[in-house]
Amino acid sequence: MSLQTQTPLQLLQSFTTQTTDYKQLINSNGINAITPQQIQRIEQLSGKAPHHYLSRGVFLAEKSLDKFLDDVEAKKPTFIFIQKYPQKEIALEEYVTLEFARYLQDAFNVQVIIQILDDIKVLNREATINEASKMSNDLMKYILAFGFNEDKTFIYTDYQYFGKMYRTISLVEKATAYNVVQPFFNFEYSDNIGKLSSPSIMTASMFSQSYSHFFSSPARCLVLDSIKNVQFHSIIDQIASTLHFLQPSVLFHKMVPLLSGVTKFDIPSDLNSILLSDNAKQVERKINKLAFSGGRNTTEEHRKLGGQCDIDVSFQLLNIFSSDDTQVKDVEEKYSKGELLSGELKKIVSSSMKDFIVAYEAKKKPITTAYLKAYISKTKF
Amino acid sequence: MSLQTQTPLQLLQSFTTQTTDYKQLINSNGINAITPQQIQRIEQLSGKAPHHYLSRGVFLAEKSLDKFLDDVEAKKPTFIFIQKYPQKEIALEEYVTLEFARYLQDAFNVQVIIQILDDIKVLNREATINEASKMSNDLMKYILAFGFNEDKTFIYTDYQYFGKMYRTISLVEKATAYNVVQPFFNFEYSDNIGKLSSPSIMTASMFSQSYSHFFSSPARCLVLDSIKNVQFHSIIDQIASTLHFLQPSVLFHKMVPLLSGVTKFDIPSDLNSILLSDNAKQVERKINKLAFSGGRNTTEEHRKLGGQCDIDVSFQLLNIFSSDDTQVKDVEEKYSKGELLSGELKKIVSSSMKDFIVAYEAKKKPITTAYLKAYISKTKF
Repeated sequence: MSLQTQTPLQLLQSFTTQTTDYKQLINSNGINAITPQQIQRIEQLSGKAPHHYLSRGVFLAEKSLDKFLDDVEAKKPTFIFIQKYPQKEIALEEYVTLEFARYLQDAFNVQVIIQILDDIKVLNREATINEASKMSNDLMKYILAFGFNEDKTFIYTDYQYFGKMYRTISLVEKATAYNVVQPFFNFEYSDNIGKLSSPSIMTASMFSQSYSHFFSSPARCLVLDSIKNVQFHSIIDQIASTLHFLQPSVLFHKMVPLLSGVTKFDIPSDLNSILLSDNAKQVERKINKLAFSGGRNTTEEHRKLGGQCDIDVSFQLLNIFSSDDTQVKDVEEKYSKGELLSGELKKIVSSSMKDFIVAYEAKKKPITTAYLKAYISKTKF
Repeated sequence: MSLQTQTPLQLLQSFTTQTTDYKQLINSNGINAITPQQIQRIEQLSGKAPHHYLSRGVFLAEKSLDKFLDDVEAKKPTFIFIQKYPQKEIALEEYVTLEFARYLQDAFNVQVIIQILDDIKVLNREATINEASKMSNDLMKYILAFGFNEDKTFIYTDYQYFGKMYRTISLVEKATAYNVVQPFFNFEYSDNIGKLSSPSIMTASMFSQSYSHFFSSPARCLVLDSIKNVQFHSIIDQIASTLHFLQPSVLFHKMVPLLSGVTKFDIPSDLNSILLSDNAKQVERKINKLAFSGGRNTTEEHRKLGGQCDIDVSFQLLNIFSSDDTQVKDVEEKYSKGELLSGELKKIVSSSMKDFIVAYEAKKKPITTAYLKAYISKTKF
């Protein structure tokens, strides 16, 4: 079954199996697996050790990454781009792209631009303008806690920034036929007209023409995104080529599994995910009670056959969020061999994730509403 | 044949006959003919003689006019609204709504807001952003020449003002189902997504919520529009009621006939219309050579049967654009009786229209680019 002929909904439904066939996903969507040579090149260009998201394959695929690295090397204008959808609850899933953007900014001293889709939230009837605005403010505080270089970081919401972007948005609209985006977004005849044009808002933001106060000439954009959106990026490339704009480079990351172990697209919530707002106790409880285990049915079986790291949610969390390579390797080996039991694994992961959450909490604490206000007025265009 | 079941295209095609059945158009679209009582009320409220556009039925129909007059009388916040589509050539057709807005502003000392749809021009692939911007600037000069009270007149283009309007636009988008606007605009599956959402831009501008710097509480809007858009206004009312916004009042005017006498919807151009940029000589030539005549085939027949004022373009131009009631009445009587021949009528109309154009030219002359710039910066929000 070729994934290329699937609609995004079908594509996402195919993730209901416990493991995702990333290899097939990459091959059938015309993107590339990240190579050891590319990781080496990032290390050389930045003079810093590569992030464990690269060495452990959390970021696993790319489109036009070499072009971005060429432009970084040639000191041409570039920027890193992330798109965020406001949610009441902020899950660990949100952490991956933000942390990686922070690392890339640190590595390459590059501009980071983050778009918060408050308008799309309203058009999707999930919030009023006021609610979306409150969620966006909360999300901004979570983002600032990552420790970006604030002089080189621009975070905006569509409602605030639409005026500056609108010329570019209308060009994207003009270049985007309804019949091209309709299958991807599953638009229906009864949908509201704002939804139908929303792809332009989600695309114009990846072109440097939307940020004329930062870039006087076209700048290369590197988008950090989940691989579940891979098909949208081929639409974006078509639009870019129609408009003679630079096609964005993209780095794709794996999906962060829900606690149930299913990687299916589902909105992370308090019931199925660890939230960035959880405290240490809640993290411990969720891992112990909810995290799907790759352990065997009995202790004897487990000792004999070993645990299954590829479907064990606790191990996957450790693999994504712990920066301690030695520990991760050690745990993987022992769990696979059956030396480490499921309960023992959970204890290790729980302790590591608690440290992780506590460290983040400490960084988030100084980001008060007053701090946020000062940041926004500092970055106002 | 009920007009209510017709698409706008069919509706417009029905205007290919020489005369339009305005009575049927009014009855079948749920709007009202303007009554003598309403004209009298306008006269009383303003303390000024009613404009000949009212007494001669150029503005002939209305929706919720009484509510607007109530609010004027109660000194509640109100505004007059006009929408303009930028064109390379500015035809006489453009004159009617602008002149009437100027009169109403003078009569009621009310805010006038004029939206120029430069973005829709681009989305319709009729101009680049730069070309649309140039056309909009030209149009703005033509508008300022009408002598509005500039302290109470706000003229904007969508590209300039989108940022301020966007919250309201997105609410309108949310309240507008694609299947409601699709038949009216004849949208197709291959259309670009900007066109599909453009009705929101053309609607949000009629709600005072889009002008928060003018109105701190909801203000009644009176739209001046051609009767050919009557069906769109019932969509606007649905949207307003969904959003609990005030439904705009509307005054509808007759179509200004093309020189060929056809009132069918056709973009006015140098070939079929008198342009506001024409000089006296061009006006004379167009009336003599191109204006469809309601005269009879032979002089004898004409003397016997009389000329037909209702299909005579020259007479209609006089009726719309001359402010001399005595002359218009006199000409109508004599032409209908056959006392006045077609050539004689054209001579009278030509002279009157030349005076009209020369008077407008004189008002337009001081509106230089520098003047326009100063006006824009003065009205900047």
